[in-house]
Amino acid sequence: MKVIIIGGVAAGMSAASKLKRLKEDTEIIVYEKGSDLSYGACGMPYFISDVIKEEASLIARTKDEFLKRGINVHTQHEVIKVDTDQKQLSIKDLENNTIIYDTYDKLIIATGASAIRLPVEGKTLKGIHTLKTLEDARSLKQRLQDETVQKIAVIGGGFIGLEVVESIVESGKKAILIEREPQLMPQYDADIMAPITTMLARAGVEIHLGETVKAYQGDETVSRIKTDKRTLSVDLVIEAIGVKPDTGFLEDSDIKRHDNGAVIVDKQLRTNLEDIYAAGDCATVYHRLKDSFTAYVPLGTHANKAGRIIAENIAGNPITFPGVIGSNHLKCLQYEIAKTGLSEKEAEALDLAFDTVMVKAANQAGYYPDAKPVHIKLTFERHTHRLLGCQMVGEKGVALRINIMATAIQAGMDAQTFSNLDLAYAPPFSPVWDPLQVATNQIK
Amino acid sequence: MKVIIIGGVAAGMSAASKLKRLKEDTEIIVYEKGSDLSYGACGMPYFISDVIKEEASLIARTKDEFLKRGINVHTQHEVIKVDTDQKQLSIKDLENNTIIYDTYDKLIIATGASAIRLPVEGKTLKGIHTLKTLEDARSLKQRLQDETVQKIAVIGGGFIGLEVVESIVESGKKAILIEREPQLMPQYDADIMAPITTMLARAGVEIHLGETVKAYQGDETVSRIKTDKRTLSVDLVIEAIGVKPDTGFLEDSDIKRHDNGAVIVDKQLRTNLEDIYAAGDCATVYHRLKDSFTAYVPLGTHANKAGRIIAENIAGNPITFPGVIGSNHLKCLQYEIAKTGLSEKEAEALDLAFDTVMVKAANQAGYYPDAKPVHIKLTFERHTHRLLGCQMVGEKGVALRINIMATAIQAGMDAQTFSNLDLAYAPPFSPVWDPLQVATNQIK
Repeated sequence: MKVIIIGGVAAGMSAASKLKRLKEDTEIIVYEKGSDLSYGACGMPYFISDVIKEEASLIARTKDEFLKRGINVHTQHEVIKVDTDQKQLSIKDLENNTIIYDTYDKLIIATGASAIRLPVEGKTLKGIHTLKTLEDARSLKQRLQDETVQKIAVIGGGFIGLEVVESIVESGKKAILIEREPQLMPQYDADIMAPITTMLARAGVEIHLGETVKAYQGDETVSRIKTDKRTLSVDLVIEAIGVKPDTGFLEDSDIKRHDNGAVIVDKQLRTNLEDIYAAGDCATVYHRLKDSFTAYVPLGTHANKAGRIIAENIAGNPITFPGVIGSNHLKCLQYEIAKTGLSEKEAEALDLAFDTVMVKAANQAGYYPDAKPVHIKLTFERHTHRLLGCQMVGEKGVALRINIMATAIQAGMDAQTFSNLDLAYAPPFSPVWDPLQVATNQIK
Repeated sequence: MKVIIIGGVAAGMSAASKLKRLKEDTEIIVYEKGSDLSYGACGMPYFISDVIKEEASLIARTKDEFLKRGINVHTQHEVIKVDTDQKQLSIKDLENNTIIYDTYDKLIIATGASAIRLPVEGKTLKGIHTLKTLEDARSLKQRLQDETVQKIAVIGGGFIGLEVVESIVESGKKAILIEREPQLMPQYDADIMAPITTMLARAGVEIHLGETVKAYQGDETVSRIKTDKRTLSVDLVIEAIGVKPDTGFLEDSDIKRHDNGAVIVDKQLRTNLEDIYAAGDCATVYHRLKDSFTAYVPLGTHANKAGRIIAENIAGNPITFPGVIGSNHLKCLQYEIAKTGLSEKEAEALDLAFDTVMVKAANQAGYYPDAKPVHIKLTFERHTHRLLGCQMVGEKGVALRINIMATAIQAGMDAQTFSNLDLAYAPPFSPVWDPLQVATNQIK
């Protein structure tokens, strides 16, 4: 059996490695259009700030290591066309500028996504960066080490935006954060994010919410941003406004894609065409709480799980991916921000019969030194009290604690069952009632 | 309705407060034989070491606060007899040395437990302490501040023992730890505890495992411990070998008790006699994984939950306590130690068909600075792969992470379902596969 994988980062190389372990005699060929393989993209915000010094730390496995395992990896090879009838690919060798052809028995599409760029005047000026590939990270890291670069605008107050703002603040430079929505982290509810906005402002970040970039200006290099409200003087711009699936090469194929271009897959990560799978940032994912096959949640953790499950399926084990519920967390300076399941606005959009509670509780026994408040907002089904979502912010005990609630929600637990869970307790780590149980105790 | 509660610490005062909120017109009378009410006993190891400076920090609510809420609290009142036919109590007023009588409609037994003492020669010498009551803590704190007290023996390597050893090490004094079993934390498996023994020895703790205290020696005050293997010179002794339920006053009653004296209750915390409930360290608790009503797990977190559930039942809401699975964690110097569900030896004792896996995984992305290994041991049902237990030790990301697995076990989850859970991920907090999922991925 010959398996071709298009894309050699998270989903693609997870699938390759797992498949080789499950069925050693499988012929596996990977075509990656970039130069880098299997890197930890989520570490890039820490690489550009020099928290992570060496680029090599981000590389999980090198090309040589894959070749040694019998996985035939070709970098600088861009697949430009898929003929699903003939099971044949057209591939551009970017180094030699030639076209080659190859055929597959099974195909895995794992091409990832690209940074969305703002389509505004001045967008081709120098000094406007994104942070999606390792190449982006290299060039951004270099620019940030330039001492003449002091005022840095970050466009977009989502995950990458806030992680990058942290880097800038810690480097002692000036961060200017511009977000189109009237709040940071727009997938969260506005009320739970309020303490983060306050904290960032206190840390010296200039925050502009509900403000839209209209143009970049400057002489060769960007030096001003014109928004709908003002003109800002800047030395560098980092756009972090989201990503779009890299699936343009499928345009002439019959492979079904979602509105944003993501390949639509079922719970076995199969596309609509036999023998073709897709996973990672180029594909949709099943959302358990929305009961939707067209959710787009481009995160490394899903890419890794999905790659592994494709390998199992190709190896003959029909395992399904139960889907996602929207769990995420991030560090932003001294704060931890976390969410799982549905926010209030997501529950509203689904037209569910739900209610919310919001509590503030200590992360640990109040008498143990250095306890910090944790803000918790729960979303739950009105009549059954089934838990639907949780959002948390605080300085301690937030990031890992969200996964307790993530597990409960995926188990279909209601508030009372959660309140009575036997959770470990000791003063340095938790009050006698865990903050999450303090919250579920409010649901009556 | 007149409710009498015997015992005014965790279970008793939780029940009193909750019942007053649910049914304000209930007459609630509390008899507590000690002087202190509603204190955070779990904070005492940190109080004696001066990590917690003020005793007042440990007091959740004062007598005056309870009185103001209409809860009639009597301290220094010891219930010495229960006449369950007449629904009458005999109570000794310890201040005035008189006997009074009172009658109840509903009775809650929440008398807690006392420290077990070693029944050895020299046990009445001065300088031998326990740490069960706030009075114990006061006198121990005073002794530890004495500069002539330098060599302190801790008898018992369980929770309290290790927390106290931490205190001693951090105060710069010499800790000598003596444990009868051949390992620390005997309810854990020996293999998972090995890194802790090594760490404590490196921190300068003199550890004697598998060694039994035979006698205390000294002139008025203890100065030597004779064990079955050697004689140790000491300035102070702290016994931390467990607790026994304070239920001697029930000896002549028909209230059913377990071998160790704990009052046996059902899932509604009812004893065998109508209108009589029991909770906290004086009662048994239902263990979900052992399917046993005679488990004895004296922990504050269960006492608080059980107290609240008794109040609901008395108020007419027949809520059940689903039971415990043995979740606990503790801090010991730079390490976190945690367990939920069944250890290997507990699964063996139950004669279950089970297997175990043991893994070492990083607590966070390997490339993010200061990642630490987490040692994880899982116990699971052999044929179904249902998760039965988890033990973890490590320097970071252990204490809160155990509650993710505690929730999964209580939901009846199997390994594959756990591996596919959507858990939040970001480099400072977790690798792309959570360490717990790295462990469940090993179950095939």
